[in-house]
Amino acid sequence: VAKIDFFYEFASTYSYPAAMRIDDLALDYDVEVNWRPFLLGPIFKAQGWETSPFNIYPDKGRYMIRDLERLCEALGLPPFKMPKTFPAHSILPARVALCFTGEMRAAFTRETYNAAFAHGADISDAKVIEKVLKGLGEAAAKIFEKVNTQPVKDALRAETEAAQKLKIFGAPAFVTEDGELFWGNDRLEAAMEWAARD
Amino acid sequence: VAKIDFFYEFASTYSYPAAMRIDDLALDYDVEVNWRPFLLGPIFKAQGWETSPFNIYPDKGRYMIRDLERLCEALGLPPFKMPKTFPAHSILPARVALCFTGEMRAAFTRETYNAAFAHGADISDAKVIEKVLKGLGEAAAKIFEKVNTQPVKDALRAETEAAQKLKIFGAPAFVTEDGELFWGNDRLEAAMEWAARD
Repeated sequence: VAKIDFFYEFASTYSYPAAMRIDDLALDYDVEVNWRPFLLGPIFKAQGWETSPFNIYPDKGRYMIRDLERLCEALGLPPFKMPKTFPAHSILPARVALCFTGEMRAAFTRETYNAAFAHGADISDAKVIEKVLKGLGEAAAKIFEKVNTQPVKDALRAETEAAQKLKIFGAPAFVTEDGELFWGNDRLEAAMEWAARD
Repeated sequence: VAKIDFFYEFASTYSYPAAMRIDDLALDYDVEVNWRPFLLGPIFKAQGWETSPFNIYPDKGRYMIRDLERLCEALGLPPFKMPKTFPAHSILPARVALCFTGEMRAAFTRETYNAAFAHGADISDAKVIEKVLKGLGEAAAKIFEKVNTQPVKDALRAETEAAQKLKIFGAPAFVTEDGELFWGNDRLEAAMEWAARD
């Protein structure tokens, strides 16, 4: 079965609809999704950005919120809600996600995005993540024991470096097995089509 | 009949597929298109950019070319060809476009984009624009008499200022009669849908 790498950043607004849509599309196209959380911060820093481009360019930022409102409505998602702090520090949820594999990682990711962009919660807050974990029926304490250990830290660093090596400059990004890169929620269908035709 | 403003910049790669697609979509949605060439340069300068973001961020620039190659193939357009000088100085074609109205403006625009991104021609070169005009059966000399007159210069400045007032920060952009802004070739369908539902 064809595979696709789904690179996402927990602070990224456009990664949110992609995370909500990708599993249905993967079924349609018969493609297997590898969920790969990474950090955009180091990549933005290398581009000379200290924050999100949506903060650096206010017209773009205002437009993004309106665009997400329209997108969420069209997709039947809850009304889009911008968190007070944007972009969120996403190291905690990214590390937690890497403590899971397979469907649990996908479920944790979706619930965390829901907390961030349907409820405006601060996903850098351990209490918010704990609540998400409890909702998934996980022994939250167990995950929190693991989350700041060296292997988990190293895993996240490795994913961010992998993204950099693939020339990823934004999120979400999709990479097919033959190395084709697609950027943005708007390219999810094109990426699936490419992956499936291999 | 519902109307939509189509703001485009002759140097903008993603304005090209939008220009090639918009008339067919306008027919489908029964929407009237107002073709409005403008200059992104002053808007980018106000954001602190001296050139295209695709030059400032090389990974993004390389991705854009690949993305356009895929897009053009999917749309049945000729193979995408990047002009040697990018972004092109687009004052000349923008002024020429404003010398036309209606279908002639649309036809001139499409042919100029075709010269730029299917043939890689330099659309700041008067000879290239003259050739486009001749292909349209126009008395090119007549247009060139008008193109650098004050009313035409003022018209282009006014369109660029109108775009700024509408908070347009990139091209293509679509604005419906109720002031809803959509950015990018990827949003053309959503813009049409919005315009048609008024």
